[in-house]
Amino acid sequence: MNKKKNRGSLIVLSGPSGAGKGTIHNELLKRDSNLTYSVSMTTRSPRDGEVDGVDYYFVSEEEFKKEIEKGSFLEYALVHGNYYGTLKKNVDDSLDKGLDVILEIDIQGALNVKEKASDAIFIFIMPPTMRELRDRLVKRGTETKEKIIERFKNAYKEVNEISKYNYVVINDEVESAVKKVQAIMLAERCRVDRIEEFDLNNQEELVHELLVDFNK
Amino acid sequence: MNKKKNRGSLIVLSGPSGAGKGTIHNELLKRDSNLTYSVSMTTRSPRDGEVDGVDYYFVSEEEFKKEIEKGSFLEYALVHGNYYGTLKKNVDDSLDKGLDVILEIDIQGALNVKEKASDAIFIFIMPPTMRELRDRLVKRGTETKEKIIERFKNAYKEVNEISKYNYVVINDEVESAVKKVQAIMLAERCRVDRIEEFDLNNQEELVHELLVDFNK
Repeated sequence: MNKKKNRGSLIVLSGPSGAGKGTIHNELLKRDSNLTYSVSMTTRSPRDGEVDGVDYYFVSEEEFKKEIEKGSFLEYALVHGNYYGTLKKNVDDSLDKGLDVILEIDIQGALNVKEKASDAIFIFIMPPTMRELRDRLVKRGTETKEKIIERFKNAYKEVNEISKYNYVVINDEVESAVKKVQAIMLAERCRVDRIEEFDLNNQEELVHELLVDFNK
Repeated sequence: MNKKKNRGSLIVLSGPSGAGKGTIHNELLKRDSNLTYSVSMTTRSPRDGEVDGVDYYFVSEEEFKKEIEKGSFLEYALVHGNYYGTLKKNVDDSLDKGLDVILEIDIQGALNVKEKASDAIFIFIMPPTMRELRDRLVKRGTETKEKIIERFKNAYKEVNEISKYNYVVINDEVESAVKKVQAIMLAERCRVDRIEEFDLNNQEELVHELLVDFNK
């Protein structure tokens, strides 16, 4: 019954490129010792100084595809000819230890995680210029009409994805955005639907235990 | 469309007596200038120094009952022969101004508010001794078996009510409990289901506006 008591939360940080999610991700890891990340698996070659099992798990394409077949990934993607994936087992092991795990991934990856871990906390990081984009582009006058319309059609598509997330944090200032994500993590730990599984049953158990004691 | 943009949130702080919700309520009001409370209406007589319209709206029982009939209250209760009620219009006026409103009420009152304002944020303040209650009572040895069982049956009932709340904050230390409630308030402002009504539609409007501009 108490098995889930100390299980951590999976936090998925996502959003369009340029939103600053990488900076927020790194700041959160620096500040919260209960928070960890998951080492990804990749088929790309290690760069100078990169250590296998620390920066990435470096594997061949054949090995990677075997893991895909086994269903080992929470999400994976093919980027510029190389595979990158988040191992489900790695994430679960950290969560079971009571650690919170943070994933910083693109929108498609986040939607894949949602299929396999619907109880994760999905946070959409909104670029600071989203609201001002229109005025800026028009004022600047350097982009073609078609380019501006394309940008806005993309923005519109992203807006539709937002409704699949739990939270939106507008990254107008890193410090304030980090504080908001931290507040979300703390608030989520207080949510009744997250704690009732163990905590409330635990109260019920206490009542029963007591009554049993008295009936001895 | 933007009308709801700056509307505040209604926060309902509740829990069993002795949980320390009054202290948390006062600390929150001290620290957050965007947070306000709602002046209650009562049929009890003003005490020395109490000002009508500031501490309470002091009215006769007849006037109070007229307000009940008109459905003016978010919640009301009869306590030791006196009526106390929270005026729906007062709360709405503050919310419309963009202020967050906090109500500190008992469990029955909170459940009444839930019927009329289901989008409020319901926070259950758990007394610090709840978990230890059993051990303490048994160790102390001063209470009768019946009294202890009764206490636990009440605790059990309260546990069932918790599932109707959104959050539980265990008040083991005031500072930490206040921080948790503040985190909940900040996180709630980032929730997609709270902002999409205006913000996302707003993005959509921007796209349309832009396209219309270009078609001129």
